[in-house]
Amino acid sequence: MAGNLPIDGQRLWDDLMQLARITEPGKPYTRRSFSPLFDEGRTWLRRRFEAAGLTTRIDEAGNLIGRRPGTEASLGTILIGSHSDTVPSGGRFDGVAGVLAALEIVRSLADRGVALRHDVEVIDFLAEEPSEFGLSCIGSRGMAGVMEDRMLAYTDPTGEVLAHAIDRVGGKVASLAKARRSDIAAFFELHIEQGLVMQDGGIDVGIVTAIVGITRVEIVFRGAADHAGTTPMHLRRDAFTPAARTAVLVDDIARELVARGEGLFVATIGVVSVTPGASNVVPQEARIVIDARSENRALMDEFLARLDTETARFATDSRTERATFARLSDTNPTACDAGLREVLRDSANALGFSSTDIASGAGHDAAFVARIAPAAMVFIPCRDGKSHAPEEWAEPDAVAAGAAVIAEAVLRFDRMQPARRAA
Amino acid sequence: MAGNLPIDGQRLWDDLMQLARITEPGKPYTRRSFSPLFDEGRTWLRRRFEAAGLTTRIDEAGNLIGRRPGTEASLGTILIGSHSDTVPSGGRFDGVAGVLAALEIVRSLADRGVALRHDVEVIDFLAEEPSEFGLSCIGSRGMAGVMEDRMLAYTDPTGEVLAHAIDRVGGKVASLAKARRSDIAAFFELHIEQGLVMQDGGIDVGIVTAIVGITRVEIVFRGAADHAGTTPMHLRRDAFTPAARTAVLVDDIARELVARGEGLFVATIGVVSVTPGASNVVPQEARIVIDARSENRALMDEFLARLDTETARFATDSRTERATFARLSDTNPTACDAGLREVLRDSANALGFSSTDIASGAGHDAAFVARIAPAAMVFIPCRDGKSHAPEEWAEPDAVAAGAAVIAEAVLRFDRMQPARRAA
Repeated sequence: MAGNLPIDGQRLWDDLMQLARITEPGKPYTRRSFSPLFDEGRTWLRRRFEAAGLTTRIDEAGNLIGRRPGTEASLGTILIGSHSDTVPSGGRFDGVAGVLAALEIVRSLADRGVALRHDVEVIDFLAEEPSEFGLSCIGSRGMAGVMEDRMLAYTDPTGEVLAHAIDRVGGKVASLAKARRSDIAAFFELHIEQGLVMQDGGIDVGIVTAIVGITRVEIVFRGAADHAGTTPMHLRRDAFTPAARTAVLVDDIARELVARGEGLFVATIGVVSVTPGASNVVPQEARIVIDARSENRALMDEFLARLDTETARFATDSRTERATFARLSDTNPTACDAGLREVLRDSANALGFSSTDIASGAGHDAAFVARIAPAAMVFIPCRDGKSHAPEEWAEPDAVAAGAAVIAEAVLRFDRMQPARRAA
Repeated sequence: MAGNLPIDGQRLWDDLMQLARITEPGKPYTRRSFSPLFDEGRTWLRRRFEAAGLTTRIDEAGNLIGRRPGTEASLGTILIGSHSDTVPSGGRFDGVAGVLAALEIVRSLADRGVALRHDVEVIDFLAEEPSEFGLSCIGSRGMAGVMEDRMLAYTDPTGEVLAHAIDRVGGKVASLAKARRSDIAAFFELHIEQGLVMQDGGIDVGIVTAIVGITRVEIVFRGAADHAGTTPMHLRRDAFTPAARTAVLVDDIARELVARGEGLFVATIGVVSVTPGASNVVPQEARIVIDARSENRALMDEFLARLDTETARFATDSRTERATFARLSDTNPTACDAGLREVLRDSANALGFSSTDIASGAGHDAAFVARIAPAAMVFIPCRDGKSHAPEEWAEPDAVAAGAAVIAEAVLRFDRMQPARRAA
């Protein structure tokens, strides 16, 4: 651990532990987007932002933003942050560490009386995790101007429409275009790695080279809810059988694509539902959501084509209908900004931290922000690579190191002439 | 349709349509056992029983019983009935038609001033359909004295214990042994066929020869809830993959066993759940319930042995644990009583109805009652074989025909000398 840091690691850690207490009591650590607990977390965050002297607002896309004015408004904004929502039974660091590190960075600037040329904004993006609406990165999509109308019409299991939910948490979908930003000079996001590379290598900070593209496909097979005893096998239209064959196929293809050595590829079926859901009724409908990720778009395209062909065949073979085959979302791999990566590397060196280049297998808000501004990410190691689970853990020193590297990078970036950044 | 019947078909039909109104409003026709709507249905039934002059009670196993005394108590009881609970989004006839037919039979006896030698009881068995506790035929198991202590400890998703739920609806688990009956001289159950044989053959009533044995197996695979992006395929412990491979296996084995021509065999996976259930989290746990049925125990034993071997292998191959492999219930095929079948056949002939022998692919309370008394069933045709679905339908004339055949059989049975019945 390096000596004097440009941030207060203990204060940052205390914030993390305090926000972790806002969770579904029996199901730590859960703060699902659009839920009352999410609102409660945001109210707490907003007060912390304001206590640090930031002017707060919620933009049209539902992102919570705290602003610190700079001395040369024309230079644009340095944006720092991540997200405060969690998966069900998630952890205390995924997302939240990035939001609170950003807060700590501006708080430390204020403590030390440092004036920056750029405006600085701390951001909590809305609903980075896949929400109950089947969509992720809702706030950063809005900020990047790529939220589609069809997505705004998605519904959650209670029947609420996404557009309504965004308005409910303080957004303004009617004027969503205003959320799109053109003033961002740089975006920095701190995040836990959620993998094993850095722990295994004993590395302090990871400088992210690229973020995988993520494609989510929803498939619904529809058959007939017949009696499980009186309907002979050959007369059935069982919707779960083709869904199960799809799951076996997805696992087999993913392993085959990985074996080619042409880059990261993973595919997961984490959402499965069968209706009516009684043991003595043949399933009428089976719904699965496939999450596929790659840093190589060619692998993804091949996967999607084979998935389409084979699931159509499974439906025919099982006398069911493939009622839905829809891409819920589809993003390309994103490279991080080369100039910002250099600033981050220099900052790590200056503070005495070891660093490594690393690809991100997880999607992040930074991938959307990269569409409208230079964007970069810093990874910190997490214990045994565990994430999206209650045992998710990052050491206090690791969180402080990541935040310090971004704080240093913000200072260095702020001093550069705009011309130098294009390097 | 035959002319003068020993029951009032219109009155029976009116009862059916009236009870159908007691349902979850947005989800017809749902009256799940142990739910408030189930209670409401039973309150309505109890009042109808009492209006027909029956003395009502709920036995220790939670069965609702209405009693009409006979002139020779030593001859024992003629029991008639079925169940009033439904599957989710079930129909208006499965079970209920048998309870209301029984009520109509005793009501008509009273109207016509017919005294019987035997006591007659009308019964609504508790929870014939698989309940939220994963168990079916709860009331008839209790009456047959085969409810096991381990079953009484089953819990529903809210954590309630089955024993508590039985007490809650009026049973008395502490003295459950008293529910076991030794006085039943004959049991008759009317039920819709839930298949296509009778509609296709244009047959009025089916005389059931045997009821399939049903084995329900719960399998839980347990892995690790890792991040769907940062966990490479070869490091995963995905619990859904072995569950999906199990579903494909079950479908394949079932079709292979049917092809042997050694009797009815069907297998269904109608209950599937995956946790934590988010699209970007590798499933930590997957639970499936397999419902397998056969009239040939040898086929069932082979199925269960292969299921055990193969699912253990799937767990190993996927680096998961097969945390549960449990028989939730397991019944042998049951033959119906030959003497009662003969009385039913004679009754159908006497009333001018066509009849056929038929095996039941569905389980019924009669299979449990058969352990302690002579039991028989009458099937009536239902439209397109549809059951366990809102569109389930039986014609008013079909319901009346089935009820009339049992009414006639009750009269004939009551007149027989006990010695003759043993034929």
